[in-house]
Amino acid sequence: MFSTIKSFLEDRRDQSLEDLKQFLRFESVSADSNCLEVMKQTAGFVRDRLAAAGLKTEIHPTAGHPIVTGEWHGAAGAPTVLVYGHYDVQPPDPLELWTSPPFEPEVRDGKIYARGATDDKGQMLTHVLSVEAWLKTTGKLPVNVIFVIEGEEEVGSNNLDLFLAEKKEEYACDIAVVSDTSMYSPELPAITYGLRGILACEVTLTGPNRDLHSGVFGGAVANPINILTKMLGSLQDDNGKVLIPGFYDDVLELSDEEKKQFAQLPFDEAEFMNNLGINAVQGEAGYSTTQRRWARPTFDINGIFGGYSGEGPKTIIPSTATAKITCRLVPNQNAAQLTATLKSHLESICPASVTMEFADFHGCEGIFFNTSGPYFQAASQAIHHAFGTEPVFIREGGSIPVVATFQEIFGVETLLLGWGLNSDNLHGPNEHFLLENFYRGTLASAKLWEELAP
Amino acid sequence: MFSTIKSFLEDRRDQSLEDLKQFLRFESVSADSNCLEVMKQTAGFVRDRLAAAGLKTEIHPTAGHPIVTGEWHGAAGAPTVLVYGHYDVQPPDPLELWTSPPFEPEVRDGKIYARGATDDKGQMLTHVLSVEAWLKTTGKLPVNVIFVIEGEEEVGSNNLDLFLAEKKEEYACDIAVVSDTSMYSPELPAITYGLRGILACEVTLTGPNRDLHSGVFGGAVANPINILTKMLGSLQDDNGKVLIPGFYDDVLELSDEEKKQFAQLPFDEAEFMNNLGINAVQGEAGYSTTQRRWARPTFDINGIFGGYSGEGPKTIIPSTATAKITCRLVPNQNAAQLTATLKSHLESICPASVTMEFADFHGCEGIFFNTSGPYFQAASQAIHHAFGTEPVFIREGGSIPVVATFQEIFGVETLLLGWGLNSDNLHGPNEHFLLENFYRGTLASAKLWEELAP
Repeated sequence: MFSTIKSFLEDRRDQSLEDLKQFLRFESVSADSNCLEVMKQTAGFVRDRLAAAGLKTEIHPTAGHPIVTGEWHGAAGAPTVLVYGHYDVQPPDPLELWTSPPFEPEVRDGKIYARGATDDKGQMLTHVLSVEAWLKTTGKLPVNVIFVIEGEEEVGSNNLDLFLAEKKEEYACDIAVVSDTSMYSPELPAITYGLRGILACEVTLTGPNRDLHSGVFGGAVANPINILTKMLGSLQDDNGKVLIPGFYDDVLELSDEEKKQFAQLPFDEAEFMNNLGINAVQGEAGYSTTQRRWARPTFDINGIFGGYSGEGPKTIIPSTATAKITCRLVPNQNAAQLTATLKSHLESICPASVTMEFADFHGCEGIFFNTSGPYFQAASQAIHHAFGTEPVFIREGGSIPVVATFQEIFGVETLLLGWGLNSDNLHGPNEHFLLENFYRGTLASAKLWEELAP
Repeated sequence: MFSTIKSFLEDRRDQSLEDLKQFLRFESVSADSNCLEVMKQTAGFVRDRLAAAGLKTEIHPTAGHPIVTGEWHGAAGAPTVLVYGHYDVQPPDPLELWTSPPFEPEVRDGKIYARGATDDKGQMLTHVLSVEAWLKTTGKLPVNVIFVIEGEEEVGSNNLDLFLAEKKEEYACDIAVVSDTSMYSPELPAITYGLRGILACEVTLTGPNRDLHSGVFGGAVANPINILTKMLGSLQDDNGKVLIPGFYDDVLELSDEEKKQFAQLPFDEAEFMNNLGINAVQGEAGYSTTQRRWARPTFDINGIFGGYSGEGPKTIIPSTATAKITCRLVPNQNAAQLTATLKSHLESICPASVTMEFADFHGCEGIFFNTSGPYFQAASQAIHHAFGTEPVFIREGGSIPVVATFQEIFGVETLLLGWGLNSDNLHGPNEHFLLENFYRGTLASAKLWEELAP
């Protein structure tokens, strides 16, 4: 029976690619208030595509961007799988670094280039296509499915938790499936059992009520950029330790077993550096690069701005300076508590000569699953079938807040099945997705429904 | 005899105001490449006005905007005075904040509003009118004069030094006069005897060859903004001292006499803070606000940028981070040497995980004149006569590079005689010049020629 489904998917490759291109043409930047209308159009496209696959669909308005759902409940006695994805994308800036425009998808060398190609439009679509293959060839699925596709993943999923909490009974499920991660390498598919959490905030310092002449006032009036650099510089020591008070108190340390697993994964540090164009890696002393990426908390300034940014010099003391900050967190660290600690610590070191504003964007906790259960083993089988090799179990350094939500609301674990590659430039210019992984991911997804059935 | 000159100037007030209005109508924005033709026309106006006053004039083309000169050498045995001014102005933006258009001069409440009203067209014109008064009433001047009026002051005076160096012998002089500064307050005219120098540079750190996902790479790859804040934060201690090695080594410390003079000047710190909208002043411990503004060196970051600056969060490690830096310097500090020190210090604290670029924009030394000499006393007398009160001797925190040039090329000091007010909005919207100060400045200038004669 599965060979019919496999043939169906192979025959439909060109159409699947056209579907993906159409999806990628929507400029669905959730952070951009100019994209409100296009976000609605994108939700409409997702709804139509789910309906075409054979699901019962609905668009749910929220206080932000709408959530789209699609359901099929014809597999009595079989598990119910909640499939999550997101149709919103990161802002495409800086535009000038894209080879082809970010919302005009283009295939080059077997890869499709566009914002959202891998994160998450392309990966998410694989599950829609696999469900369609089952329903159009056999008229049924081996499991029950509930698709929940949101439009606010890149801005903190502010309205998703509320929506899911309201659906706590209706969407009762056994396992969640999310494809928004990466393979370990082009040759090694992976199932992710650990994620870092995150806290995100913005701090703005305001000094004088206008930009001042640095000759007339310099030395006598606080410069907000000077103060911001001094405050933020004081949060990092020379060994890569973060100096926010109590930052490491609750960190779940790596077991010796995991350290061994990490060390056994192929990793070429020279190639890693070469790919990034850096002369040296840098991080917390005493940890390997893989440990730093997957299992250690961080402090990163994602953006900083204030004063003059044109050509040449301009002799001013600026009125304001702003920094955007994220900390990646590991299991057991509490995002809300550490955000509060960071805020109060910054307040305590902020001089009276400037005023400080602090915006708390969002946060979520890190995740850690036991990989020996039946659902993780089923996913491993499905991937083995489609990719021709057994997946490795890995952690990832990113954050998928919804995974914590699924655990909290539905009491379920999440299968994080990544079809992307770390080299796909997600969040950067020239984001892309290997078409071969798009097709293999779709096949693995189709196989997964069978493997998850009793 | 001087009463004749005074009457001449009083009778001509309306005509002088018309002259000023005509001068202000030229849109002579040196930074704007669309103003090339109007810059030539403005130079022509200046030449014609100098000629009408009775001087032998010439327009000197340069690689940039032309320099206009006017000379009279009929006072054998008397000193030769080099009068400097500039006919170019700052860009008028933001236009929407002007009450009347910047190049349509309008008199309101005894002030003339236009770009360049005080900086420097209005102030510079006082010396042309005073020379004219002498030549038209007595047929001669008590001193010899050389006017040098440039068109590139607001863009760095790139061609002036070369021109003056070529004229080293021809323009040999005894003292320079510049009116491009301010009175201490509306009631207190001032002669500026000290200026701060400046060094200006830009530092850029480059880490990875593209913006990276902070989840995938965070903790393992150096973040250029993190490093830049740490490097720049380390250059300032908690007492407002600059930690560039050797920064204070050559500083000319304030004498007790000067400290006493500074303290005697009226200064309302509450009003100063209120005007700037700040809760506290901040600067080098152990110095007053006036001392910090006029006689202490500074480290100011004028602009900083890197990573994401849009709405909300963006979880990236940026590829680059840049800061624009100026240090105000005080007499005896060497700009070139300190720029080199800053550069090598930054290099020494820059980790191998990023690369650093350093751009040296320009620099000039601070200025300090002894005010007890005959020229400073002559200027004091002239101002006393015109303003009805003795001027105070002050320093200023800004830099006027041409003053160092005059000292270097001609070996002369400069009388900085400001007829403007700090509240004239120079460089901002609604720039203006009090007409009473325009007339009193012209009278003081006329008296100065007499006082400078043996």
